[in-house]
Amino acid sequence: MNMLYLLDLIGTAAFAASGAWMGVRRHMDLFGVLVLGVVTAVGGGTLRDLLLGDVPPFCLQDEAYIYIALAAALVVFARREAFKAFERPLLYLDAIGLGTFVVIGTTKALDFHLGLLGAVLMGVMTGTAGGVVRDVLANQVPLILRREIYASACIAGGLLLALLNETAVPRPVAALIAAATVIVIRLLAIRFDWSLPRS
Amino acid sequence: MNMLYLLDLIGTAAFAASGAWMGVRRHMDLFGVLVLGVVTAVGGGTLRDLLLGDVPPFCLQDEAYIYIALAAALVVFARREAFKAFERPLLYLDAIGLGTFVVIGTTKALDFHLGLLGAVLMGVMTGTAGGVVRDVLANQVPLILRREIYASACIAGGLLLALLNETAVPRPVAALIAAATVIVIRLLAIRFDWSLPRS
Amino acid sequence: MNMLYLLDLIGTAAFAASGAWMGVRRHMDLFGVLVLGVVTAVGGGTLRDLLLGDVPPFCLQDEAYIYIALAAALVVFARREAFKAFERPLLYLDAIGLGTFVVIGTTKALDFHLGLLGAVLMGVMTGTAGGVVRDVLANQVPLILRREIYASACIAGGLLLALLNETAVPRPVAALIAAATVIVIRLLAIRFDWSLPRS
Repeated sequence: MNMLYLLDLIGTAAFAASGAWMGVRRHMDLFGVLVLGVVTAVGGGTLRDLLLGDVPPFCLQDEAYIYIALAAALVVFARREAFKAFERPLLYLDAIGLGTFVVIGTTKALDFHLGLLGAVLMGVMTGTAGGVVRDVLANQVPLILRREIYASACIAGGLLLALLNETAVPRPVAALIAAATVIVIRLLAIRFDWSLPRS
Repeated sequence: MNMLYLLDLIGTAAFAASGAWMGVRRHMDLFGVLVLGVVTAVGGGTLRDLLLGDVPPFCLQDEAYIYIALAAALVVFARREAFKAFERPLLYLDAIGLGTFVVIGTTKALDFHLGLLGAVLMGVMTGTAGGVVRDVLANQVPLILRREIYASACIAGGLLLALLNETAVPRPVAALIAAATVIVIRLLAIRFDWSLPRS
Repeated sequence: MNMLYLLDLIGTAAFAASGAWMGVRRHMDLFGVLVLGVVTAVGGGTLRDLLLGDVPPFCLQDEAYIYIALAAALVVFARREAFKAFERPLLYLDAIGLGTFVVIGTTKALDFHLGLLGAVLMGVMTGTAGGVVRDVLANQVPLILRREIYASACIAGGLLLALLNETAVPRPVAALIAAATVIVIRLLAIRFDWSLPRS
């Protein structure tokens, strides 16, 4: 479980950096950049915990998440002139965070006895809702609703984990497979520019 | 109560279709259209349940709501070329959904011992908050804040129900009267293009 | 504590007026103006209560908050032609509300055994989240994310209160000092047009 916690914190920092970077590009002030960083990093898990009734949410029970998100956002703000070079590597860390968040969210929902659909939704939400709130605060139609298969990667991983949960596959193994699925689909989507049909 | 459940599911499908249609018009991809459909359909009731402390919310306790919303949104996405012809009939189903949602929300709030104002607010929120979130995600000022007496219909129905609750009128009768009030005002407003004073 | 309750209600009216005024400037109808007023006034405290798990939130347990917010928003709507003259005095009432909200939110979070960071966050959120929701509903990037040290005043006051809570300083005294800190910084920021570094 320590491994999962470590990946969770890495993902938190990566998500916070992407949120802070959006704040910088939208010419927000320091406070705005910090808020976008924190909201992107912990927003999905917080919404999940509200819906599951597990309050205060994870990030208020273990403030390490918020401290790390603040630190990552602060670094992006302070080094914003040089940040452009890190956009690409950040995508890889972001993918790792995405896989981890989906696995944590789906697992937690199953522990709270949600059904299959609910568990997948909670996994997807944990991975994506923070970015949705980030985009709403930046006054944009959320990127995830428009293009890329960011969400499809989460759905695939969450569904796989929920299904493996019905089998004899040990949980840590199932979690590993599901997280890897999210990460691989996500990276392939970036590499080959995959997208869903659009209207 | 089976009748109310049936109307609730019809309203859920109608709300989901209207949300999905907004997603189509905003050129979202399949995932975005599904999200807008589901959020529009269950967003109001979910927010109500969060505020009442009844978690997980109704749609995670009975996943039929989300399956129906997904199905309705999927149909709209798949048949989007032909959907324009259904905009008008959808308004009638939407009105039925509105009346049902307001009655369910107000009743539930009264069961949770909220005051008169709180109960009316919860009824209005159940009927309208999903559409507000839909518009926010589509990056628009929520339609309901700008024109039409969509909200007034909800307020009238919710208030009537909360007041009838203080009398000897049996609950199912009161619910029927309140729902009919919402539906009739809503349809009259569409027919005669009523609106509130604007600033 | 009656004094704090009075200040809380004054702040509620001031926040509601600022929300309603935004609705008027965005040409919303009466319902929209009322919604923006109420959401601005009680949104921050409601989000705080959801996160702390204290539901139904304060404003549904004591409906006086919502009645006052509705009344203030109604006055702004009715007297919108003459309201411009009140924008400046409203800033002072708004500052009093801000200080009060931060103190109430931080204190409540400490009572719910949140850590220092969580308590400060809850204080800041109580003071600012209503305005954020107001701006999102008005389809604008929240003002607080872009300029002015509105948030910094809240952070300073909340942090001071959380730190004084560790000392022997009696709570009412600490609350008074913290609220005064928020109010003074806020008024100085208006007077001297202070702002945070921007990206």
